[in-house]
Amino acid sequence: MRELTFYFDYLSPYAFFAWLRVEEFCEAHDLKLVPQPMLLAAALNHYGHLGPAEIPPKRIHTFKDVLRYANRHGITVQFPKYHPFNPLTALRASHVAVAGDDQVGVIHALYKACWSDHKDIGNPEVVASVLTEAGFDGATMVAQTQEGSVKSALKQEVAAAVEKGVFGVPTMQIEDELFWGNDQFENMALYVAGEDVLDADWMAALERAESAVTRPRK
Amino acid sequence: MRELTFYFDYLSPYAFFAWLRVEEFCEAHDLKLVPQPMLLAAALNHYGHLGPAEIPPKRIHTFKDVLRYANRHGITVQFPKYHPFNPLTALRASHVAVAGDDQVGVIHALYKACWSDHKDIGNPEVVASVLTEAGFDGATMVAQTQEGSVKSALKQEVAAAVEKGVFGVPTMQIEDELFWGNDQFENMALYVAGEDVLDADWMAALERAESAVTRPRK
Repeated sequence: MRELTFYFDYLSPYAFFAWLRVEEFCEAHDLKLVPQPMLLAAALNHYGHLGPAEIPPKRIHTFKDVLRYANRHGITVQFPKYHPFNPLTALRASHVAVAGDDQVGVIHALYKACWSDHKDIGNPEVVASVLTEAGFDGATMVAQTQEGSVKSALKQEVAAAVEKGVFGVPTMQIEDELFWGNDQFENMALYVAGEDVLDADWMAALERAESAVTRPRK
Repeated sequence: MRELTFYFDYLSPYAFFAWLRVEEFCEAHDLKLVPQPMLLAAALNHYGHLGPAEIPPKRIHTFKDVLRYANRHGITVQFPKYHPFNPLTALRASHVAVAGDDQVGVIHALYKACWSDHKDIGNPEVVASVLTEAGFDGATMVAQTQEGSVKSALKQEVAAAVEKGVFGVPTMQIEDELFWGNDQFENMALYVAGEDVLDADWMAALERAESAVTRPRK
């Protein structure tokens, strides 16, 4: 069975929207869903890039687009209490080393708390209470997020993801192919069906594409 | 009649895709199309941001997404000879001060040359020949792109757009509302119909949204 690795950070509302679709997509296309917590800031730092929340008019545009998308798709959205926030505790609690077989349920609970229920999951106490309310052992799980093995596992996986070319979230990986964004489900369906338009010739042409100008970086 | 201002830069394939849809959208929704050439680099410089072509894995992802989108929508795409390229001559030739009543036809010709016909419209001689082949007076128009009044008009309009909050292309403006991206047509249709979900209460909540963390900038 092929896998779909789902790289996500709770900071991203588009990763939330993609999360709400990805389980059904995996079932329909016979893929095993493998959630992979990802620290978006690590990718941004690596490339010297800015997140949408770091450019004032883009931040406002993103907020508006999120509300409009949610409204069009019948999704309840309230903004997190703070944004951006520090997602590390929530990401570590969602790691398979902490969440184990409950990983999908844990991620559901934290995403809902953050994006539907206006909770501050940047606060470890809130993470614990959200998980407890969802039927998990929140206190123990949050304590586990402080273990060195959990911290280093996530750190290494995030570094490996960046190395592999994950520059944003959500990114979905099937075999070696990376699909970035909540707008990639049609492309993924074609890929899985063996109907992707990109063949070896196309890709060779892309590799040859040249830049005529380079904007100086400060 | 309300206007739809279409901010575009030839560098952006998503602005090309939006351009292919925007005339029909304007007709269907009783809007007057007002094309506005926009120098994407000016917005990127203003915000210290990087374009998709400036992050290596995002550049590749964008190329792939463009090919897949084009294939799904029956659009002929070949990549420009060079990318990024310097779009200034092409943008100035597309300015109403040069293109006049032929503005839409001029933009069609240059977009097609760049994104369907693999031409280097970063080269003024290519811009002239493309326009001549399309039935315009390419040599005269390219000469006009060197006039101070044309240069300063575009420069001022680009600065005004950035000031207004245009951070990327395509951006489409209806009244005071800015819609960024080729995925905004549904949102714009709702807006034009008076059915936008964003009312004053929503917007006040957005204004109050706080950041809990700020990533240090280098």
